[in-house]
Order: sequence, then structure tokens, then C-alpha cells
Amino acid sequence: MRIPLNELDNHKGETLVLQGFVDTIRNLQYVQFVVLKDETGKVQLSIEKNEENKALVEQVNQLTVESTIKVEGVLMDNPKVKLRGMELLPSKIEVTSKAPLELPIDYKKKDASLRETRLDYRLLDLRRDENNLFFRAQTLLLNAMRNYWFQHGFIEINSPKICANAAESGAEVFKLDYFGQTACLSQSPQFYKQMAMASNFGKVFEIGPAFRAENSHTSYHATEIQMIDAEISWIDSCQDVMDMEEDWLRYVFHELKTKMGDEIKEKMGIEISDVTNPFPRIPLLEAKKIIKGKYGFESERKDDLERKEEELICQYAKEKYGSDFVFITKWPFSSRPFYHMKDEEGYSDSYDLLFKGLEITTGAQREHRWDLLKAQMEEKGLDPKDFAFYLEFFQYGCPPHGGFGFGLARLMMQIFEIDNIREATFVYRGPTRLNP
Amino acid sequence: MRIPLNELDNHKGETLVLQGFVDTIRNLQYVQFVVLKDETGKVQLSIEKNEENKALVEQVNQLTVESTIKVEGVLMDNPKVKLRGMELLPSKIEVTSKAPLELPIDYKKKDASLRETRLDYRLLDLRRDENNLFFRAQTLLLNAMRNYWFQHGFIEINSPKICANAAESGAEVFKLDYFGQTACLSQSPQFYKQMAMASNFGKVFEIGPAFRAENSHTSYHATEIQMIDAEISWIDSCQDVMDMEEDWLRYVFHELKTKMGDEIKEKMGIEISDVTNPFPRIPLLEAKKIIKGKYGFESERKDDLERKEEELICQYAKEKYGSDFVFITKWPFSSRPFYHMKDEEGYSDSYDLLFKGLEITTGAQREHRWDLLKAQMEEKGLDPKDFAFYLEFFQYGCPPHGGFGFGLARLMMQIFEIDNIREATFVYRGPTRLNP
Repeated sequence: MRIPLNELDNHKGETLVLQGFVDTIRNLQYVQFVVLKDETGKVQLSIEKNEENKALVEQVNQLTVESTIKVEGVLMDNPKVKLRGMELLPSKIEVTSKAPLELPIDYKKKDASLRETRLDYRLLDLRRDENNLFFRAQTLLLNAMRNYWFQHGFIEINSPKICANAAESGAEVFKLDYFGQTACLSQSPQFYKQMAMASNFGKVFEIGPAFRAENSHTSYHATEIQMIDAEISWIDSCQDVMDMEEDWLRYVFHELKTKMGDEIKEKMGIEISDVTNPFPRIPLLEAKKIIKGKYGFESERKDDLERKEEELICQYAKEKYGSDFVFITKWPFSSRPFYHMKDEEGYSDSYDLLFKGLEITTGAQREHRWDLLKAQMEEKGLDPKDFAFYLEFFQYGCPPHGGFGFGLARLMMQIFEIDNIREATFVYRGPTRLNP
Repeated sequence: MRIPLNELDNHKGETLVLQGFVDTIRNLQYVQFVVLKDETGKVQLSIEKNEENKALVEQVNQLTVESTIKVEGVLMDNPKVKLRGMELLPSKIEVTSKAPLELPIDYKKKDASLRETRLDYRLLDLRRDENNLFFRAQTLLLNAMRNYWFQHGFIEINSPKICANAAESGAEVFKLDYFGQTACLSQSPQFYKQMAMASNFGKVFEIGPAFRAENSHTSYHATEIQMIDAEISWIDSCQDVMDMEEDWLRYVFHELKTKMGDEIKEKMGIEISDVTNPFPRIPLLEAKKIIKGKYGFESERKDDLERKEEELICQYAKEKYGSDFVFITKWPFSSRPFYHMKDEEGYSDSYDLLFKGLEITTGAQREHRWDLLKAQMEEKGLDPKDFAFYLEFFQYGCPPHGGFGFGLARLMMQIFEIDNIREATFVYRGPTRLNP
């Protein structure tokens, strides 16, 4: 098997077989330079135009950029070579796949093509170095998330994505024909992670797809997203959920910063957030007072934060507490889902977590008492009959519990300061995009 | 926040607040015993029937099994208590949720209810200790799988589950209305993990749902499963894929055996497979010869193994090589998908991995050369026009690559010797089961 190109340093002087894409070709008077690239790095191949190399030189004359090759040769130290001070002197080249002379997009120049054209050719768009870095960072982030939960005794669940009922809102759900019945695609694992609490799983997490049939074309909407969900039993209030999420995010961001922070800063100019300081927790009404008092801004909306307010309260948290994260607590029940528990004062015992100016998570203690849950449904104008299977989860004993959920792409957009979800998804799905 | 019940040993003599389900109640003449249970363990509460405890005793008289309670009390050493030699002497009990006197199923006795009834009440069925152990083991397994890949430089992908085209077979696909278009639910991430190879991701994995609209009611079929997929670039043959899968499984099984092997053996009587010995690799024709020569069995099928043959060749691998795993290689192209590469002799350069008598994985080198791939499609009677978006992945340079995929539940069934996929899935989906 081939040697990854980032592991060449210990192989100088050896005859090697390397594989990769052809990144660039320079055909000079007396020499040809080919830069070979794989997912780990690059190396230069140098072919002197002499009698011995005649066949090789002819091969390189025919070679196209972005073709893949397998090349045998000796790896030599050469301080004159700018790229890593080494070069491979090939004795044999095999073209394993041939790219055409011109690609449909010049993927190396992000701004040379329209976004929609780049999405049409996402397979090429993803070859750009910054996309590779983005998805390697996402992989690290997901791995750190799961490792934290694993080390803290969580069970991983995979809740069904085909369901008989819509979870929260009937309107924005995809419907499919299921052997003659109508079934729905899951909008959220919410109900099933609560079921797991009733099943004495204690603490669970799930990272999986969720589907929203919203005909929206904004930079934040997608019809298919990756949801990150966690739920824990035996809590006293949503403070316990915030404690868990804060500790978890601290671990995850520490991993990202220590393992990839330098590379991300160097290549993308982005500083991964420092998470040393505690995340402030501010009740909604107090947050509104702060925003008005400190920044002179007042919103029409009393029961929620608008975008401008999210930005300002994040600015405040950064200035006053040195934190890119801030929890907003004590929400009016009117602006929250029926299944959030009410606290003693009648507020929804829930929170939003804001990060760098944007809401990324909603968390809450859930109402686990069957009769109260039913009453809250009715208060919201919902018909308990439509939620019979869900209500049953609370009829045979159910621990007090709570949790949170959020979209992976939204978090990644905020970390990497990307302004469109289409750029932060491996293969994006929207109302007018089903391809590739 | 509460103390998990398995962490009580360091809290003797302290006043604690504990939470849990009521597991059992014994109401004796002079004393009441309540066993409290959470996801980590159990502990006994002892309430003496004296004047001081009058209110508590009355509360316990009203208490029902499977309710959840929050209890304050002093934890005392008591060697006479069989359960862990300790007991909590409560001063206060709060019922946090009340279970009815009788549950719809007696979940502790698996055989007391029909399987379909247990599936109707899956939330109760999952409370059984062996189900908790099963999903904790699955969590460990999934975590080990991902950690191996992470440490070996793989990128995690989340391929779309809503697609314009069916992947392999048009017949068994769920269709949905997608803003007026017809879309399909993904049967496999196969095409997208190959796209990632063309995008220079190098090595990728995905663990996510896959959907099959098969109207089958066997013990192995489900309409929604968790698929485990991996794909790697720059390979020379499917031997490289087998090397990766074998090394990966060796790590995963080692983790499971060392961390949970004793508990699984004690509670379920199951020995986790030893993976010290190399997995034998046997060409199909040779396997058939061995089965005939050693066990006198000959199948009508020449291009595939039937169940009996799978069992016999596994028996042989165990006897001769001390391995529960065996790779079967060199398959006739006629019995394999169009995208498998052919070797020099015209065989499909692919393998099946068998484990304890059953096929669990198919892996292969893929045909990455556009013209040959198109020809193989035509050879299989498929119309390349139907696969235009897929063929495009191979037009702009694509590394030689290969990988494998398999169903999580199938692996878990073999490990835990469970005979029905309904028992090995968190919430099962079949043609007649959309609930809970």
C-alpha cells in the first residue's frame, strides 16, 4: 500500500511507490516538475529531459492536471526544492485515472464560479484545501463530542427516521408512502430520546439526520440537517442541563483548539474560541435590560430575542465575562414548545445558548408528569389524541429529565465564520437542490 | 445533582439525595424495604415502622413499583443487607412520577409476553437489564469503531438521505414528495462515499441510517437500519480493504472484550470472540472444495454461498485457524454489483466477511475508471443514463479506491447470539411496524 505524502520524511534515499492527484505541471526546457497531492500533503516529482527519461517525459507531456497517478522513484533530499526540500526522481509513472484538459470549474478559486455552479460540482469544490480542513475539523469535533459522552456513561441511540406521526409541527414534514400507509420523516429525535429516559437509559445522545420540509431559501435553511441531541435523567432544573452542555463544549473546544487551532489560524485566519471562562447565564428580561442600558437598543419582541439582540448580548458577554458563549434563561412559556417544564414562576425552565452572536442550542427541563404534559398540550391548542404514542412514554414512571439539541452545520458555520449553510454541509439539500 | 447509585461506596455516613425507579417494595411487619434503581445500579432503602417514620411509612404504603422517587436520607453500612451491604435510611421521599399498579407487560420476564406486544411497549421492554447491557455494549462498539478511524486519519461524512435517484435497485426504494418532485430515501451511502474519494478525502467513514422498502417479514429484515460504511483511496486491490477491516475489527473486539467481556459473560453467558489470530482469506472456489471435502456438503449454487455453507466454512475457520472471522474472496462478477472492479482473471475483486456462521460484510475494490464502469453497467443490463450523476464522479480524476459496508444490527445479533433483528434495534421498523 502507498505511503501517505505527509510521511515521506523518514523515507529519503529509498525507492518508493507513491500515489496522488496531479496538482500542477511545469514543463521547462530541460526539466519537468509535477506536484503530486494526496489528502495529507504534496511532494514534487522532477524529471530531467534526458535520453534515459524519454518515455517518462513523453508521459508527462500527455499528463493532465487532476489526473491520478501511481509513481515509482527514488526520494532525494534537495534543499533547492521550495516544497519540503525534497523531490522524487521517477522511474515509472502509471496514470490510474485521466482528467480532461479543462474541468467544469476552477475549484481552487472559490470566487471564480457561482455558488450554485460550485454546488453542482460539489465533488470538485470539496477538493479545495479549506474544505478538506473544514471537514477534518468537523470530524475532530464530532469525535470529541462522542468521546466526552462515552466517558460520562451516555448510551448512544439511533432513533427511527421513518415515523407514524410528525414530532412537533405537522406542516413542515416530509410524507412518504409506507406500504400503503402515510409515514413521516423525523424532524427531531426529541420524542425518542425522552422515551429512552422512560426506559431507564439515564443519559443518551444521538447524532443523526433530521428532515424539514420548509420551502425556505435563506442562508440558514436546509431540508436535511445533522442534529446533535443529548438528554439526561434525574435533573433538578435546566441548570443541570446547562452544566452538562457547558462542560461538554469546554472539552470539545479545548480539543479543537489544542489539536487543530494553529493550523486553522494559519490557513483560514480564524481563532478558535477560548473556553476557559464560565459561560454567563442571564435571564431573558435581564438580558433585554442590559441591551437597552448598555447599547440603547430596544426590540418590539418581548418574548424572544431578535438577531440584533443576540449579537449585542454576545458582545456584552465577551466584554464583561470574556466568553464567546452565553446562556439566556427563564423564557416565557408562550414562546417555547409545550413539552418544556414550567418553573415555580411559570417561566419555561429552558435556555438558549448563543455563540458568537447567534443562537445555536435550545435546552430545557421537560415536563415528565403525564397530567401536566397533557394540560400544557391543551394550553398550546394541540390535541392530545394526536400525541397519544408520545403521552404513553410518561404513563409508567418516568424520571425528571432534560436535554438539548442543535444543528451541526450551524455550529460549524459560527466556528468557521461561514455565512451560508450550503458551504458547511458535505452535500447540501434544499427545496431546489436534490443533486448531486 | 443526584449521585449515580454505582458511586455510593465513598459516601457512607453522609446525608444524600438519591433518585431512581422503585424496583421492588417489601412491606413487612416492622419494616419496609424499597429497592431503588437507576441506570447504574441499585440500593436498598429501609424504613422502620416507628412513630417518627409514620408519614414515610404511609408514603411507602401508597408507592407503586416503577414509579420514580427522590429520596433524602443517611447512607449506612450494614453487612446484613444482601444488596451491597449498605442501606439508605430515608428522612424524606418525593414521588417524582407515579406508575400504575399494573404495567401492560411484565418486562422483567421476557418470555411472559409475545414479542409483538413487547415491541408495542418497547419503552418498558428496554428497561430489562439485558437490554441496557446490550445498548451499552453497542455504544462502546460504535465508539471504538469511530476512534480507530479517527486515529487513522479518516474523515467522517454525513451523506444525504434524501436523493434524486435510487442507489442500486429501483424496486426497493421509499419514494417521497419533495416540493412536487419525486425523491428517494437513500438505500446506502455507497455512491457518496465514492464521491468523497473523488474529492480527495482519502479515507472516509459514515455510520447512519439506510432505508429499504422491502415487504419482508423475516428475522433479518428491517425497513430502516444503521449502516456502517468505510472507503479508502490509493489501494492496489481489495486485499488493502481487508487489511483495514481486519485491523479495525481487531481493535474494536479487543476494546469490547477487555472493557465489557467479563460483565457480558457473567450476565448473558456470552464469550466475546478472541481476535488474536489472523482472519483466514479463502477464495470462493476453494471454500466450496473444503466444504465438500471436509463436511461432504455440496450446494446447487455455484456463484454464492448458501447459509449452510456459511456455517460450515466458519466451522472450518474456527477449527483450523482459531478464528470466528473468515474472508471469502474472488467472487464471480455475475453475483456482485456492477461497480466492483474485476481482477486480471475476470473475478470481482471483492470479499465477504463471515462471522460466527453468517455473512456480515461485503467489501471490494471499486471500478474507478469511467469507461470501464460504464461498460460494466451495460454488462449488467443497466442504463448508464440512469446513473449519470454517479458516472460524473469519475470524470475528473478519481483515485483507485475500495471499501466495505455492513449493518450494525446484524453484527450485534451475531455478537450477542440474538435470533431476531427486532430485539437488536432500539426502535424497530418493519412493513407492519411504524410504532412506537
